[in-house]
Amino acid sequence: MGAQPTVTDVAGAAGVSRQTVSNVLNAPEVVRPETRERVQAAIRTLGYRPHASARRLRTQKSSTIGIRLDPITQDGISGSILDRFLHALTELADRQGLRVLLFTADDPEGEIEQFRRLSDGADVDAFVLTSTFHGDPRTEWLIDHGQSFVTFGRPWGIDDMTDPEHLWVDVDGRSGLRDATEHLLSTVGNRIGFLGWPAGSGTGDDRREGWLEAMRDSGLADAELQRLEVAAEDGVTFGADAIRRLESQAGGLDGVVCTSDSLALGVLTATGGRIPVVGYDDTPVAASLGFSSVAQPLDEVAAGVLELLTGVHGGRVQPGGDVSDPRHRLVAPRLVVRDGPPLIWAR
Amino acid sequence: MGAQPTVTDVAGAAGVSRQTVSNVLNAPEVVRPETRERVQAAIRTLGYRPHASARRLRTQKSSTIGIRLDPITQDGISGSILDRFLHALTELADRQGLRVLLFTADDPEGEIEQFRRLSDGADVDAFVLTSTFHGDPRTEWLIDHGQSFVTFGRPWGIDDMTDPEHLWVDVDGRSGLRDATEHLLSTVGNRIGFLGWPAGSGTGDDRREGWLEAMRDSGLADAELQRLEVAAEDGVTFGADAIRRLESQAGGLDGVVCTSDSLALGVLTATGGRIPVVGYDDTPVAASLGFSSVAQPLDEVAAGVLELLTGVHGGRVQPGGDVSDPRHRLVAPRLVVRDGPPLIWAR
Repeated sequence: MGAQPTVTDVAGAAGVSRQTVSNVLNAPEVVRPETRERVQAAIRTLGYRPHASARRLRTQKSSTIGIRLDPITQDGISGSILDRFLHALTELADRQGLRVLLFTADDPEGEIEQFRRLSDGADVDAFVLTSTFHGDPRTEWLIDHGQSFVTFGRPWGIDDMTDPEHLWVDVDGRSGLRDATEHLLSTVGNRIGFLGWPAGSGTGDDRREGWLEAMRDSGLADAELQRLEVAAEDGVTFGADAIRRLESQAGGLDGVVCTSDSLALGVLTATGGRIPVVGYDDTPVAASLGFSSVAQPLDEVAAGVLELLTGVHGGRVQPGGDVSDPRHRLVAPRLVVRDGPPLIWAR
Repeated sequence: MGAQPTVTDVAGAAGVSRQTVSNVLNAPEVVRPETRERVQAAIRTLGYRPHASARRLRTQKSSTIGIRLDPITQDGISGSILDRFLHALTELADRQGLRVLLFTADDPEGEIEQFRRLSDGADVDAFVLTSTFHGDPRTEWLIDHGQSFVTFGRPWGIDDMTDPEHLWVDVDGRSGLRDATEHLLSTVGNRIGFLGWPAGSGTGDDRREGWLEAMRDSGLADAELQRLEVAAEDGVTFGADAIRRLESQAGGLDGVVCTSDSLALGVLTATGGRIPVVGYDDTPVAASLGFSSVAQPLDEVAAGVLELLTGVHGGRVQPGGDVSDPRHRLVAPRLVVRDGPPLIWAR
């Protein structure tokens, strides 16, 4: 046992899981009295102390979480995903007596300026970040300045899954696209195309991997797979252009999976539902037009973010802190299968 | 001149408009130096003092506005309008150094409980309310407790336009539907139907008035107009059912205006674009499918809300206060005309 007892030490001493220890610390009412007493005895015996920051977030009823509200995009079909995350986060935070404070920023530097302002003024105790990217200066700044934070989104670098200082929750887009591709492979044919964003976006590249894995497993050669994919910026008209390119280069196409519902809607408007399509984000547009899409379970993401903020880590992993507690959560998405839209292109 | 000099007094003494006085108080940088000095001299001479609350909101850089985040609706096409308002409000508030704090509530009573909690703790200096309704207990509570607030939405009662204690900004849905109806009357024919919500919703009844006015002006008799309208709950499938009922009772239908894009989308899916339709809210769905819709200028609404919160009224009209300053703003919506979706129903 090291100098600082950890949650794992407490769990071992009390003969319970780490989750139970976390529950005793954060939601004692859900733990049976006998178990609670056993864990509390182990905490006393070992002299275990959760971080000050975690304690602060847990005990101050008025603790405030800051989050940037992204600007509305014109082609706002998929943008609504972050609004839906904000709703889930606010609702769960409210139940725990935490407040959510909004701010805006034009770019990462502007967002860092806001971090500085809001943490100096003690207006905000922890930050939630969205839309992370490779080499994100925002998380670097927060780590350097010892600020509590959790991101919805991975760091998208070599340390993706292991970086001990960066707490994150994300949705496993790769498995989502893999499920979508396998669904089409088993229902419509073996030539399933991929319509995704230009290479270099962490999210987009990750989703593409899911398609690639499923197609390789189905037996198609890589040379053939090259003809089955095309890249486009996000947007309905870009999706419509891209599906025309894909059809002309593919040499036969049985279905297509997309990295967004905007692209999927573009496919539909250009093909009139002739080619089965699966989108991503399960937006109201997919639901109302009746096409299949991969849904991000935003309630689970929000719950994970709050657990990492208020649990043993308290949104900040200190050097030498307990590294055995999970600090990253990859949430599985859910494929929503629909019949396809009963619409055809009339021009 | 009364005991308390008003903005109107200052404006008269300085020979400028009330808006200019408000600018000098709130955004002096937009006023020419000579004019600014003249207004400031008049303020000094008359001993004019804006409300304490207004001053507090204007001078405290950390003043915080509380707003309830509505739950996501399943059929979320039109729900996004409040998200878009929140974006506009947060962006403008941020530029003025005001913060936006979110909370949730299940019902009006729960929202009042939050008002109490947030104002007792001095966490929030003013509230912004959305989705107002007739006899709304929330605004009553806020007025009774002297809290600063502005609503996006009218009180929907007999005092709509005159209630001096209730500051509001709203979009003139009546003129929006009137414009939509006149557009169809001048382009597709004289039998324009109305597909709206059941009577009793302030917003819905107001929009219906716009259709009714335009149709009466076009010369159709009231007996005929009765056959041209039908009510439905909001939602795509309700819209599809309703247009079938409307077609069977109308005895000829050249086009239809709706109180929401959800209903309009229902019309489209049921008729395949055979009947020209205009929706309301100009959602991403209307833009991406290419049908016409009435757009709410949410930037203007947000700007109006902030002006009423931070201007001379400070979100709260005191008894005996200046009643000459505008305290209600009815913003004109904008009809976005599109060609109609190039889609037809295939079942």
